[in-house]
Amino acid sequence: MDRSSRGQVDPFIVMDMVAEAARLEAAGQRIIHMEVGQPSTPAPQGAIAALSARMGTDALGYTVSLGIPELRAGIAALYQRWYGVTLNPDRVIVTAGSSGAFLLAFTALFEAGDRVGMGEPGYPSYSQILKALSLQPVGIATRAQNRLQPVPADLDGVNMKGLIVASPGNPSGTMLSKDALAALIGYAHQRGISFVSDEIYHGLHYGERAHSALEISDDVYVINSFSKYFSMTGWRVGWMVVPEDHIRTVERLAQNMFICAPHVSQVAALAALDCIDEMEANRAVYAENRRLMLEGLPRAGFDKIAPPDGAFYIYADVSAFTEDSLAFARDILHNAGVAVTPGLDFDPVRGRQTLRFSYARGTADIVEGLARLTAYMGQSAGASGGSI
Amino acid sequence: MDRSSRGQVDPFIVMDMVAEAARLEAAGQRIIHMEVGQPSTPAPQGAIAALSARMGTDALGYTVSLGIPELRAGIAALYQRWYGVTLNPDRVIVTAGSSGAFLLAFTALFEAGDRVGMGEPGYPSYSQILKALSLQPVGIATRAQNRLQPVPADLDGVNMKGLIVASPGNPSGTMLSKDALAALIGYAHQRGISFVSDEIYHGLHYGERAHSALEISDDVYVINSFSKYFSMTGWRVGWMVVPEDHIRTVERLAQNMFICAPHVSQVAALAALDCIDEMEANRAVYAENRRLMLEGLPRAGFDKIAPPDGAFYIYADVSAFTEDSLAFARDILHNAGVAVTPGLDFDPVRGRQTLRFSYARGTADIVEGLARLTAYMGQSAGASGGSI
Repeated sequence: MDRSSRGQVDPFIVMDMVAEAARLEAAGQRIIHMEVGQPSTPAPQGAIAALSARMGTDALGYTVSLGIPELRAGIAALYQRWYGVTLNPDRVIVTAGSSGAFLLAFTALFEAGDRVGMGEPGYPSYSQILKALSLQPVGIATRAQNRLQPVPADLDGVNMKGLIVASPGNPSGTMLSKDALAALIGYAHQRGISFVSDEIYHGLHYGERAHSALEISDDVYVINSFSKYFSMTGWRVGWMVVPEDHIRTVERLAQNMFICAPHVSQVAALAALDCIDEMEANRAVYAENRRLMLEGLPRAGFDKIAPPDGAFYIYADVSAFTEDSLAFARDILHNAGVAVTPGLDFDPVRGRQTLRFSYARGTADIVEGLARLTAYMGQSAGASGGSI
Repeated sequence: MDRSSRGQVDPFIVMDMVAEAARLEAAGQRIIHMEVGQPSTPAPQGAIAALSARMGTDALGYTVSLGIPELRAGIAALYQRWYGVTLNPDRVIVTAGSSGAFLLAFTALFEAGDRVGMGEPGYPSYSQILKALSLQPVGIATRAQNRLQPVPADLDGVNMKGLIVASPGNPSGTMLSKDALAALIGYAHQRGISFVSDEIYHGLHYGERAHSALEISDDVYVINSFSKYFSMTGWRVGWMVVPEDHIRTVERLAQNMFICAPHVSQVAALAALDCIDEMEANRAVYAENRRLMLEGLPRAGFDKIAPPDGAFYIYADVSAFTEDSLAFARDILHNAGVAVTPGLDFDPVRGRQTLRFSYARGTADIVEGLARLTAYMGQSAGASGGSI
């Protein structure tokens, strides 16, 4: 049988780093993980307790396709709590992670062949999911002075049917101000471009909170997840907010493409909404990790970094050291025992000269990782005169 | 924002019946559920126990995209146990239910615009998922003398890039003999048609077992799930077996489109593979339910039924009573208090004169449902002279 051309998507390079780190660990080496984009903490205790109680008494069959009504209401209430936005729960669609939400959004909004824009650097799966759905990803180079986020001027003359924006961004961790977000939404509406706001890192900010596209307009798709703030990556439960006149379209797609999000994960997610103390304790760890990283990375030599407003990433320009970020990351892994992600996943061009550091793990690992990086960079600079 | 045309898929009519039944129940009426295609039993006790033990000690983050290696090995061993087929576990891909498997299979195999064939009556989501992926579903009318399954002669002159076959079928419950399956696979290979075998009801047979396409060829996609035999619908965990030279393509798609199947569900599924006694006890209930249905449905007047070799459905030709199966199903729901599925979901043309009865619930419900159907049909026949 033949494989389709649209199925020939790129791999996640970070997964290759994960695999290489696992091989070194299997051989007995201790590796510090700064490559993975997920918390090392489990789901909140309240979520696990709620599910344990339900598993003994409930068959946990299919739920309705749009999700358990109490969960949709609970998510709607989160918009009041976080943003002061009153949201009709009917507009909330529970999905199989943000991944499931992207599949639903892209099929609901775009025809085969449509062009969809996104800032670079950015989450690599946007492009690959678009390709798998016979859509054309259009990378838009962002600039450091714009905090690695797109601005309307970047979009002028670019033919596109949709635009995906993420604030805080991955890999940058940079956020859009409310004005900057409003400018992008206004521009998109003016040109008839569908606007998809990826808000998966909301809740994880270290200064001002992030702004939701729903504070600005109802005519947007907003995608979020229980994976990051609620520390439930492997549970595959997220959500999407759509305009009212899109609900029935997305419902029919969800019925057929997914039937429903995992019932167990929906039960756990509903309880997680009430575990704010535990989530805020996790955030305090990230905040301390971030402080250590912002102090330690420049000391190690990584001083060209984007302002990390949120999420748990720091994106560094390493053009002073390399033009091959993959080889550089491999060298750091093998010689410093620290796994990091080469920027190629996020920016196929400029990513040759960038690295992403994740600080989602425990603080002890961050301290150890920074010490290793500092020692490595000192040695490397000595050995090669600064050009690794 | 505009909705795409490919996003305008059909609803599951059965979901409307589910909703209408729920409204009647909310109003205090007791409804017998013969409409839903899922067991009323929970996941096996061993699966729940295994997950309970793990939830306290493991963060349950992302798994590798192809699934937990032990689960892939356990699924491969199932092919030895069930069919005597030795299967390389590398070819097993753990998916978010069979729904996730279809999304991966269709994107890996087909380009936008490709035509994909399937027998009618059949599982309605095949067509709707294909449409959402900008593919063209091609319904192939099957015949009663062929047990409502396609045969090569039905495919002659039909332009198609792929063919989906299900044995046991939904809604019919009919199975293909090994020779009949081999004939379809041989025909597909000869014409360069990709062959997708939906084996989700395997394990649920009441005479001879079903045959896997993998007993005949390695050059097929086989899709299965923990939903039916293992009674884990809401857990959204299934699998797909692909040819060796397709593994890497599907892995990259899975990394980007799903990241992974739910970790909790994979843990439970791995333990479920060892819960054969409990699964066989469930099957014994279905066997008794089926016996009662085959005795009771003709007595009630539903005597034109397909031979239900497997699954937990009986598909009835009700052309003697109606030309509007939806109105008929609504009448049965409101006047007999039994929810059934109109055939329109499965066959847009001939489904106007068919109903699907599910016997997946407990035996007491089957007895009560049959008594209600018998009373209803007796009354209706009396009231309207046999033409409802």
